[in-house]
Amino acid sequence: MEKFEIINLLKKTANGEITPEEAAEKLKIDPFEELEFAKPDIHRGLRQGIPEVIYGIGKTPFQICEITKSLLENGQKTVLITKLPKEYIKEISEKINFKYFEVCKIGVAGEIPKAKTKGTIVVATGGTSDIPVAEEAAITAEVFGNKVTRLYDVGVAGIHRLFSHTKDIMDAKVIIAIAGMEGALASVIGGIADCPVIAVPTSIGYGTAFGGVSALLSMLNSCASGVSVVNIDNGFGAGYIASMINHIGE
Amino acid sequence: MEKFEIINLLKKTANGEITPEEAAEKLKIDPFEELEFAKPDIHRGLRQGIPEVIYGIGKTPFQICEITKSLLENGQKTVLITKLPKEYIKEISEKINFKYFEVCKIGVAGEIPKAKTKGTIVVATGGTSDIPVAEEAAITAEVFGNKVTRLYDVGVAGIHRLFSHTKDIMDAKVIIAIAGMEGALASVIGGIADCPVIAVPTSIGYGTAFGGVSALLSMLNSCASGVSVVNIDNGFGAGYIASMINHIGE
Amino acid sequence: MEKFEIINLLKKTANGEITPEEAAEKLKIDPFEELEFAKPDIHRGLRQGIPEVIYGIGKTPFQICEITKSLLENGQKTVLITKLPKEYIKEISEKINFKYFEVCKIGVAGEIPKAKTKGTIVVATGGTSDIPVAEEAAITAEVFGNKVTRLYDVGVAGIHRLFSHTKDIMDAKVIIAIAGMEGALASVIGGIADCPVIAVPTSIGYGTAFGGVSALLSMLNSCASGVSVVNIDNGFGAGYIASMINHIGE
Amino acid sequence: MEKFEIINLLKKTANGEITPEEAAEKLKIDPFEELEFAKPDIHRGLRQGIPEVIYGIGKTPFQICEITKSLLENGQKTVLITKLPKEYIKEISEKINFKYFEVCKIGVAGEIPKAKTKGTIVVATGGTSDIPVAEEAAITAEVFGNKVTRLYDVGVAGIHRLFSHTKDIMDAKVIIAIAGMEGALASVIGGIADCPVIAVPTSIGYGTAFGGVSALLSMLNSCASGVSVVNIDNGFGAGYIASMINHIGE
Amino acid sequence: MEKFEIINLLKKTANGEITPEEAAEKLKIDPFEELEFAKPDIHRGLRQGIPEVIYGIGKTPFQICEITKSLLENGQKTVLITKLPKEYIKEISEKINFKYFEVCKIGVAGEIPKAKTKGTIVVATGGTSDIPVAEEAAITAEVFGNKVTRLYDVGVAGIHRLFSHTKDIMDAKVIIAIAGMEGALASVIGGIADCPVIAVPTSIGYGTAFGGVSALLSMLNSCASGVSVVNIDNGFGAGYIASMINHIGE
Amino acid sequence: MEKFEIINLLKKTANGEITPEEAAEKLKIDPFEELEFAKPDIHRGLRQGIPEVIYGIGKTPFQICEITKSLLENGQKTVLITKLPKEYIKEISEKINFKYFEVCKIGVAGEIPKAKTKGTIVVATGGTSDIPVAEEAAITAEVFGNKVTRLYDVGVAGIHRLFSHTKDIMDAKVIIAIAGMEGALASVIGGIADCPVIAVPTSIGYGTAFGGVSALLSMLNSCASGVSVVNIDNGFGAGYIASMINHIGE
Amino acid sequence: MEKFEIINLLKKTANGEITPEEAAEKLKIDPFEELEFAKPDIHRGLRQGIPEVIYGIGKTPFQICEITKSLLENGQKTVLITKLPKEYIKEISEKINFKYFEVCKIGVAGEIPKAKTKGTIVVATGGTSDIPVAEEAAITAEVFGNKVTRLYDVGVAGIHRLFSHTKDIMDAKVIIAIAGMEGALASVIGGIADCPVIAVPTSIGYGTAFGGVSALLSMLNSCASGVSVVNIDNGFGAGYIASMINHIGE
Amino acid sequence: MEKFEIINLLKKTANGEITPEEAAEKLKIDPFEELEFAKPDIHRGLRQGIPEVIYGIGKTPFQICEITKSLLENGQKTVLITKLPKEYIKEISEKINFKYFEVCKIGVAGEIPKAKTKGTIVVATGGTSDIPVAEEAAITAEVFGNKVTRLYDVGVAGIHRLFSHTKDIMDAKVIIAIAGMEGALASVIGGIADCPVIAVPTSIGYGTAFGGVSALLSMLNSCASGVSVVNIDNGFGAGYIASMINHIGE
Repeated sequence: MEKFEIINLLKKTANGEITPEEAAEKLKIDPFEELEFAKPDIHRGLRQGIPEVIYGIGKTPFQICEITKSLLENGQKTVLITKLPKEYIKEISEKINFKYFEVCKIGVAGEIPKAKTKGTIVVATGGTSDIPVAEEAAITAEVFGNKVTRLYDVGVAGIHRLFSHTKDIMDAKVIIAIAGMEGALASVIGGIADCPVIAVPTSIGYGTAFGGVSALLSMLNSCASGVSVVNIDNGFGAGYIASMINHIGE
Repeated sequence: MEKFEIINLLKKTANGEITPEEAAEKLKIDPFEELEFAKPDIHRGLRQGIPEVIYGIGKTPFQICEITKSLLENGQKTVLITKLPKEYIKEISEKINFKYFEVCKIGVAGEIPKAKTKGTIVVATGGTSDIPVAEEAAITAEVFGNKVTRLYDVGVAGIHRLFSHTKDIMDAKVIIAIAGMEGALASVIGGIADCPVIAVPTSIGYGTAFGGVSALLSMLNSCASGVSVVNIDNGFGAGYIASMINHIGE
Repeated sequence: MEKFEIINLLKKTANGEITPEEAAEKLKIDPFEELEFAKPDIHRGLRQGIPEVIYGIGKTPFQICEITKSLLENGQKTVLITKLPKEYIKEISEKINFKYFEVCKIGVAGEIPKAKTKGTIVVATGGTSDIPVAEEAAITAEVFGNKVTRLYDVGVAGIHRLFSHTKDIMDAKVIIAIAGMEGALASVIGGIADCPVIAVPTSIGYGTAFGGVSALLSMLNSCASGVSVVNIDNGFGAGYIASMINHIGE
Repeated sequence: MEKFEIINLLKKTANGEITPEEAAEKLKIDPFEELEFAKPDIHRGLRQGIPEVIYGIGKTPFQICEITKSLLENGQKTVLITKLPKEYIKEISEKINFKYFEVCKIGVAGEIPKAKTKGTIVVATGGTSDIPVAEEAAITAEVFGNKVTRLYDVGVAGIHRLFSHTKDIMDAKVIIAIAGMEGALASVIGGIADCPVIAVPTSIGYGTAFGGVSALLSMLNSCASGVSVVNIDNGFGAGYIASMINHIGE
Repeated sequence: MEKFEIINLLKKTANGEITPEEAAEKLKIDPFEELEFAKPDIHRGLRQGIPEVIYGIGKTPFQICEITKSLLENGQKTVLITKLPKEYIKEISEKINFKYFEVCKIGVAGEIPKAKTKGTIVVATGGTSDIPVAEEAAITAEVFGNKVTRLYDVGVAGIHRLFSHTKDIMDAKVIIAIAGMEGALASVIGGIADCPVIAVPTSIGYGTAFGGVSALLSMLNSCASGVSVVNIDNGFGAGYIASMINHIGE
Repeated sequence: MEKFEIINLLKKTANGEITPEEAAEKLKIDPFEELEFAKPDIHRGLRQGIPEVIYGIGKTPFQICEITKSLLENGQKTVLITKLPKEYIKEISEKINFKYFEVCKIGVAGEIPKAKTKGTIVVATGGTSDIPVAEEAAITAEVFGNKVTRLYDVGVAGIHRLFSHTKDIMDAKVIIAIAGMEGALASVIGGIADCPVIAVPTSIGYGTAFGGVSALLSMLNSCASGVSVVNIDNGFGAGYIASMINHIGE
Repeated sequence: MEKFEIINLLKKTANGEITPEEAAEKLKIDPFEELEFAKPDIHRGLRQGIPEVIYGIGKTPFQICEITKSLLENGQKTVLITKLPKEYIKEISEKINFKYFEVCKIGVAGEIPKAKTKGTIVVATGGTSDIPVAEEAAITAEVFGNKVTRLYDVGVAGIHRLFSHTKDIMDAKVIIAIAGMEGALASVIGGIADCPVIAVPTSIGYGTAFGGVSALLSMLNSCASGVSVVNIDNGFGAGYIASMINHIGE
Repeated sequence: MEKFEIINLLKKTANGEITPEEAAEKLKIDPFEELEFAKPDIHRGLRQGIPEVIYGIGKTPFQICEITKSLLENGQKTVLITKLPKEYIKEISEKINFKYFEVCKIGVAGEIPKAKTKGTIVVATGGTSDIPVAEEAAITAEVFGNKVTRLYDVGVAGIHRLFSHTKDIMDAKVIIAIAGMEGALASVIGGIADCPVIAVPTSIGYGTAFGGVSALLSMLNSCASGVSVVNIDNGFGAGYIASMINHIGE
């Protein structure tokens, strides 16, 4: 309930259209939905075409279908489903028309918006094994309407691979740096780039990689200013934040 | 060396003003300084008035004075010195005219720029003990020319304190959420806000707070999208990133 | 051996019915069984209808059946079996008449008592993935005769969901707050509620969730007074403690 | 703002006493303070004589004095100040009349209430070194009006010491079990007692005690049902929860 | 090479039966086998009937057979094979006549010696799930000729179960205390017993049991003197050490 | 209360010297002191001259004096005080006649017994920095009447130093192996020796030594059978256990 | 682009063969490939016959085939593929002629060079279970043209096994010491040898071996100078470094 | 005892100059000193002028003086004392003529050898705070006769600083890469260089730097082949290994 709606409600009360008790009840039932602070994406999404997100983990195919259909029927144009197990696809695709990105386990129901931003999000990875996380970030960003440039396998062991893309890095509005093992990519990009860098540690590696902890610590301790970090393998989160930043001023 | 400078160099070679060997030597000596990608802040800083930053840790008062003076003499208008021990102040202030923010151990030499941004950075803390880290973030942001709103002691144990500032949170362009102990502030703000949230765990707490690790893990696992994290107690880093984001589109 | 039994034994000695040596032997053999302090649940259970509990882990289906039958034959009305693997059900159900709650792997043999408490235990979860642990807590509490209110999926990322249940929280006699990931639910409920909160971290999450350690640390560091914590995924323990508290004064 | 106050406000709007715009403004400014759910202790405390608590850590002596005086002037009868450094006492005692418990660093301003509960809280420790944490729990409980029985130095290495107090343990309404090193006290008490046990690990020990982590893990893994745990050295928290439980049904 | 063999060798040199060069070569080739300090068990074993031990992990069935046969052919009476996977049994039993203890994955080839010690080793466990580790210890000890008393499922949650066996504990020459979860059994036994206690943490438990780390830390921090610890689940090691101690003075 | 005392009590009851109620009361008050199983060292100590032990940590000089005097007055011949801070010595030595071993912070009041054992305890250290822990072990063992051989600075980096003492190692009845850093000494000694080895990790080292954790893990994972481990820096515990073993069969 | 090529380019510019703009473009496109510092192994490899390495993890069989064929076609004589899953072999061997070392999951396409070094690399393991890692190191070294001596199963529990190979150790130019469990082998070899020792912790062990962490810490804390460490199970890395060292001065 | 000495001993036995018993005794007493494999540095040092090393930690000034004097009197030309506390200098310098390098706490008694190697060791650091560790490495290497090039403050946040020293890196025979925080320097250098890289993590940093653990993990997980790692802050160890490598082939 927007502020003007509250005033409308009160005006109706003042006008006798509704009783004070009815108004109180209305305020009591929906105190938070009115303020809307906790569901901004849904309503704004409807008006602006921003996708709604469903986390696939811990939900049954049936639940995912029901939520997706309900959202689409309520006017949502795009629904993004993350961490969607491959074995769900058969059951879900019989009920919903959707596209599945297997490499990163993302499903998209409804229309996939075209890139509307002038600014570009660069998604860079240290190695080829980091690509599933990178695609989770990239496709999330694309579904949110962003222009995305992929720079995969540009890790610091062969740093010339990264430097041959200096222009992409300098032109980016925000960069997602994704790496496992020692995670040095974030620091090196952070040292070159002039925009916010979202670092994503991946669980790639063995032994003392400790499932991504080594990369995480590297990224948190980056000597380059401008680097912030999300959870291990959290490509979606990085794509979401990058989209937030990329939409500023557009 | 800008691209046009390379072309100039080559033209001089073509004109015989310099020999090919001299040109090769020139390219060999400064291959990276020419590109300048790794020092963008300094030069742009000079042109645009962006402050230069000196990390105070591990440097002697003499070193700090020399670097600061050199920067100011080369045209830098503002120099920010972080993690500057209180016991250095006497020696440094005899040599440089600068302002010391004792609560967060920041020194600023040269002029402190006025807030030039329309967008606002909200700096929120869970408790009063988090204020030194918060001030490091806030003053960093202010010295970089940002408008800052401070919301201190709005932790989740008394969540009404936070909600009485809903408007500030909804109006922010970027938010810095700072908390120790269980670090839940970042998730709660992330659930309400509609802009990027930079989370800073602090080392406040005892026992299983583990010097900030508990808060760090909370923030990395935030179920709210839009939250990224920096190192424990890294107020400067958060202020720097927030400033980057806040300047977009201004 | 109750105190009166000791006096009886001594009276018999005084009467010469048994010799001092026999009495000494009797005292020597059963010094602890006499006091019975370590088996209060069994005997009191028989008199009062309190269920006996069998941990299913590390026992064979045969062992579980034998213990359950022995308890029921000795007058126990209800037997609760926790962590009972689904693959045991076929074999056990051929021998015992019991009900299996698959979502939380609890089996109940004998009659399930009706709620006898006036006070209510609220079982709240951060997300839908926490429901198996929550049901372990809720069904344990119900089998112990408690009235239970379930508030599932009320995590802090959409804090309005929690606040729309403020009345349930204010009316509870004890609350079980169950969450994985950053575990902030316990602090937020602890800040609102006016009764003891038992926090249960769950192993839900990935990367730095570290199998529940992140949520555990959050809960141990809760800035809200009134929160105590049990082991990761220990729904049974929380239900048991909540039942103890809920029965006080009834 | 109670529900009836909301109805009154709306009635006034209906009556034209205030304009709808004024009513909207009123609702916008105080949406949470009206509900008051987040400050129950203060107001109820004033009505019922429950002490208010100030955390001493991270506050200056001046701040502590100001908050304490403000609370006392607003009708608060007792103010409990925890983790109050000894070196603050001189400055504070010049301004406030208060009692300082040095062993556990608690200060109490105003009157210390007499024990009003019929039920008893047992505070037990494994060793003499755990006494500072135990006194923090015991005095907290006493200041909240509870009857407290202290059983100090009854650790499992000499388990007869504990068993000579079996009656105290069986008579308790709630028990606080405090131990460092291997923390086995909580399990042994939990195995004997028939009431909730709040376990407090302490940082006592060396080497692999890891500042209380060893005791914490023991307590979280207690094979005895009925044991929940608070942060390392958190005597206050345990005393607060025990008081909550002890007041049920009184 | 025993000392007398060295003297023999030198006598032969002195007698001219072999040249000094040949003697030097002989000493150079076998400098350590001569001293025999690193293989005391094999040779002494042959003389005294002490079993030889083969670790089954990381060896193929073929390798195990070859080593076992070689040992038996060289006069070894008993060969103990630990951590022997069940799936090896079929292949091995076709080649060797041996007995397999499935619960603890121990195989014994050759004759199993009768208990020859007067002293008794008590093997106690906290729960029934610890029995596989306990049997590894008990059977190891028995194969080394020790009298063993088993006290299983005597954990501290029902401490009367342990105390009903006080006599066994007081009569033991050495005790092996085996427990998972909080591992308090070792401390309680260590507080009662008057002989060395070898504590074995097991990986039983979940969540913060951390695969045995919680029990390990408890045992290392035992406030009872007389407790030393071996690796998690290392029943063999405990049985071996207990046997060493039990044979002293026999 | 010894068994014969119980029989006496019952006889008095049978004789009518005391009433059954009085006997019951007597049994109720002292149920555990009668059995005395938890205080064997004190009484046996009095009869046999075994020292009583006081842990100095967490006790005041006054408390230590009072306990020591009380023990000596009750017939105790020797009192061992461990972890006794140097700054306590002045105050204590004014009240008690005792000897202080500064290197290992042990005080001994009363007479120091002469070595009475035929068997020898070898105390070996990896480096010179481990000597304080080693002396804690050695003096503990000596005060308990054991013959002790010290082998200091025989670490594996110069393994010939250890091997030049092969005879001491082969002749020992029990060995205490003390090392920090990588803690390999325990494995090497365990591979050579033919008796129980008690390993003590020390907190010597820096960086990844992690205050003794590296040495602890090495010792727990020793590939040599016969090695058990005590807490980091726990020289007393090792000396106590070694004394237990060394006294077997004497 | 070698330095002489840059000079050639500039000469052509000076001669007018190419325009300055063309030269600038050429320099802009390939700034790093020209310098070639980041791909020294490829080109030098072609000239010197040094193998190229492909990491098999995270690549499909198709990708591995394509890269391998491309390298061979470009003149590479030997291609080493590490961590190559056994299930890939069928598919790959249909397309490429290569040899697969199953024990260490290495594939080698092209010719395997003969040992060309005079110096020898010793590869030593603590146990037989470490052999897969050891073979990864040994075969890597051999494919890089080194002479390798294998000393397997020479761990410290039976230290005579190691000492019987003293000559091999003294003659080595560089040693790779591979061990799991307590990892003491590296220290013992480091104490004897007079050449660099590369230590490889393996994930062999259970319980507190923590998947190689115990061995890793031992090796990092080695009291023997001359020991450096690589990641857990990183046999390839050790072989690569050892080869670098072994080729010095040849 | 060299091999020829053994033969001499045996010849004397053959000649009757000594009895076989005397020879056996001689061999029994000094079996390891004869072989001398464990003291190669001392004797070779005397012949070749290689410095002897004393670890200063855990030794008194008196002990250090005595050892140093003894070494010098026995012909040692140079004695290196590491980790020498500044407060020892006054006492030691009164007794020995030696030079103290305060920044890295190294003392050198006797003559400091001139660089004798043709090959160069590069010592590189990420920041200025790493210089104490770097100087420990550099001075160690210089005292062992190596030519050293220092590249300080060339961390990856400003990667052009490193690349402006590409020639130094390409010319090095071995490189020591020293960094705290995220430790990415080792990977970047390892990706460029063509020689062994010894990585030294430093304890520089705060929060999640965890005293060097973050840098350590980065270095162990380096995606660049050719990097091995030593303990946190172990500059001496790196200098020692680098010297070993640098002397090969000289």
